[in-house]
Amino acid sequence: MDQPLNLVLFSGTDDKLQAAAVLTAGAAALGKPVNVFLQYWALDAFRRERIDRDHGLAPEAGPEGRTHVDDLRRAGQASWADTLRQAKDLGEVDIQACSLSMDLLDIEATDLDPLVDGVEGITAFYLNAGAGQVLFI
Amino acid sequence: MDQPLNLVLFSGTDDKLQAAAVLTAGAAALGKPVNVFLQYWALDAFRRERIDRDHGLAPEAGPEGRTHVDDLRRAGQASWADTLRQAKDLGEVDIQACSLSMDLLDIEATDLDPLVDGVEGITAFYLNAGAGQVLFI
Amino acid sequence: MDQPLNLVLFSGTDDKLQAAAVLTAGAAALGKPVNVFLQYWALDAFRRERIDRDHGLAPEAGPEGRTHVDDLRRAGQASWADTLRQAKDLGEVDIQACSLSMDLLDIEATDLDPLVDGVEGITAFYLNAGAGQVLFI
Repeated sequence: MDQPLNLVLFSGTDDKLQAAAVLTAGAAALGKPVNVFLQYWALDAFRRERIDRDHGLAPEAGPEGRTHVDDLRRAGQASWADTLRQAKDLGEVDIQACSLSMDLLDIEATDLDPLVDGVEGITAFYLNAGAGQVLFI
Repeated sequence: MDQPLNLVLFSGTDDKLQAAAVLTAGAAALGKPVNVFLQYWALDAFRRERIDRDHGLAPEAGPEGRTHVDDLRRAGQASWADTLRQAKDLGEVDIQACSLSMDLLDIEATDLDPLVDGVEGITAFYLNAGAGQVLFI
Repeated sequence: MDQPLNLVLFSGTDDKLQAAAVLTAGAAALGKPVNVFLQYWALDAFRRERIDRDHGLAPEAGPEGRTHVDDLRRAGQASWADTLRQAKDLGEVDIQACSLSMDLLDIEATDLDPLVDGVEGITAFYLNAGAGQVLFI
């Protein structure tokens, strides 16, 4: 069977989350299972009440990068959360919150957007990842 | 055949691009094919008119890091662009611009430095990557 | 034999180093050998005299993130350096400094914390990594 693609999402800015969503959707479209593991600031961005907010961009984006991102959004580009929702319709995408980061940020499972399928530890992440590619974003 | 090394370059600061160039050159020297996929701020740094500019450092570098980088550059260290050019002479290095990021940043193929071999989508990236290692930088 | 997990540590902020330490400890607990390769600002954080300092957080952490990290630390969470020490007791964890970054930052081997096992070049890193997963953090 095809090895899964595994993404450890650490960063919570909209540009990195969008890059991660595109990598997820592209793999799902190719029939590859995708495991997403949410840590730190990425996990924070998946709170039910924050997921649709502006999460900023990497500092290097600068004002020019900000303008490009805003223009594309106004032109109708899907948000990263929408892209992930579409990826879930398209293929086998499992999104898990890291239990240690849940403690760190004092988040309960009910605080998370329904995009998140569950909470797990690092051991479960590795076991699901198998020998598949792992990216840290 | 040896699986390729695959780098998704997202960040466009000189320190991360230098790290990516060293990873590329090292793999090329070992005879490993390398696929580089340029997104967001990394793609922006490969514009023909910007590639030789100062692209800044990660914020954590601080003034001390800045001094070290400037000192080494004055001592004759190759730029990341030069390191990538050498890597292309050394081995099989293919650099592709992400088509979605081209749209985002409103870049045409002719705007890019000749280091960039073409423009492709995420599907082509995955197909070329095969089962090789993938790093997100 | 199990392929090793390979981490290229580039970032030197406490949040990313903590994430890296948890990934290392988790793999070690599963019996997976782990190779850690220290570059740039991550290497700087492993200086003997700096390892116990505050290395800041990613800019996106913000004041709220800072508070969460401080709270957890006060509640007794192990530092990333302690987590790495425990990982070394638990399994096969080899931490190497990148020779190019040693030059860049003007660091001697004796300046480094005993957690670091040696200094090597990128070629040695690739040869030790084999076909194992590689993460850039």
